[in-house]
Amino acid sequence: MKQEIRLLGIDDSPFTFTDKYCTVIGVVMRGGHYLECVLKRQISIDGDDATYVCKDIIKKSRHRKQLKALLLDGITLGGFNIVDIDEVYKDTELPVITVTRDKPDFDKIKIALEKNFSDWKTRYDLIKNGKIHKIKTKHNPIFIKCAGIDVEQAKEIIKLSTIRGVIPEPIRVAHLIASGIIRGESYGKA
Amino acid sequence: MKQEIRLLGIDDSPFTFTDKYCTVIGVVMRGGHYLECVLKRQISIDGDDATYVCKDIIKKSRHRKQLKALLLDGITLGGFNIVDIDEVYKDTELPVITVTRDKPDFDKIKIALEKNFSDWKTRYDLIKNGKIHKIKTKHNPIFIKCAGIDVEQAKEIIKLSTIRGVIPEPIRVAHLIASGIIRGESYGKA
Repeated sequence: MKQEIRLLGIDDSPFTFTDKYCTVIGVVMRGGHYLECVLKRQISIDGDDATYVCKDIIKKSRHRKQLKALLLDGITLGGFNIVDIDEVYKDTELPVITVTRDKPDFDKIKIALEKNFSDWKTRYDLIKNGKIHKIKTKHNPIFIKCAGIDVEQAKEIIKLSTIRGVIPEPIRVAHLIASGIIRGESYGKA
Repeated sequence: MKQEIRLLGIDDSPFTFTDKYCTVIGVVMRGGHYLECVLKRQISIDGDDATYVCKDIIKKSRHRKQLKALLLDGITLGGFNIVDIDEVYKDTELPVITVTRDKPDFDKIKIALEKNFSDWKTRYDLIKNGKIHKIKTKHNPIFIKCAGIDVEQAKEIIKLSTIRGVIPEPIRVAHLIASGIIRGESYGKA
């Protein structure tokens, strides 16, 4: 695989309980080293537009034809606004990889969803959908889901786009921008 | 000089004639390769707070102690809001390097200032202050000004932080973020 493949990373901004919307940042990078483009959208907190917003960022980017994969910081953006990664792949033909540091605790998630959403079952099914793969790294393991790409290829993309730690640069950089523009100075880890 | 020195790059966002403020983005990078922090401020268009905003970004950043230089995309932010780079250096002790692709046309600048500002003379003196150095690159030459750093050291910093083209990464990345978060998708060159 070429080291300089174009990857899109998307992450959301921090928000407070009174906010209705938060910011979503997309970044296009060549491998893990060179930032080519920054994109911005708004998303409704706990809404249902995360899938649409991801597809919109992909389709409207002038880098669409060069993109080889979308990397997501988990499967939700803006609270429990869940990305249907299968639909994103089917509609855009761009493979999707979600990355998290921790294995999702589905029991906890179910309780939170039941408590807060009349459509909790739909959201829960969407979150549970797809196999979680535990991936070894030099540091702690990470947990990934894939749509439109096999695990071995996903591992290769993660490896070539990770510089320090375990989080691929397109996600890490999207996180820094999303938190920096809301807080004044970025902080925390993707 | 270490390849991984921390550099702060600052650039402003695009704006329209009806805007009173625009966004200023600061980025902290290790050399030209690794983004460590994103900072954001607002600045008044054609105002006089550019020097304060640069000092504020430097002083309040938790990376202050690691920073080795500030790289600026020219000497103005938010229209004719001029950065007094000598004052930034004196007050913060952080060396400043301004970088532009074109040699400033002072006659044109003077006409624009005279037409629009009662304090045009103060602004003009500030813009003219400091020697402009023409620096050869692999591509077109660039034009720099320095405060608190000699030209040879400045050239070394520019060289180690430039990956493609002629603009150092901290400025290029700050530009991409500032334009991306205002326009929805970044465009244009720093």
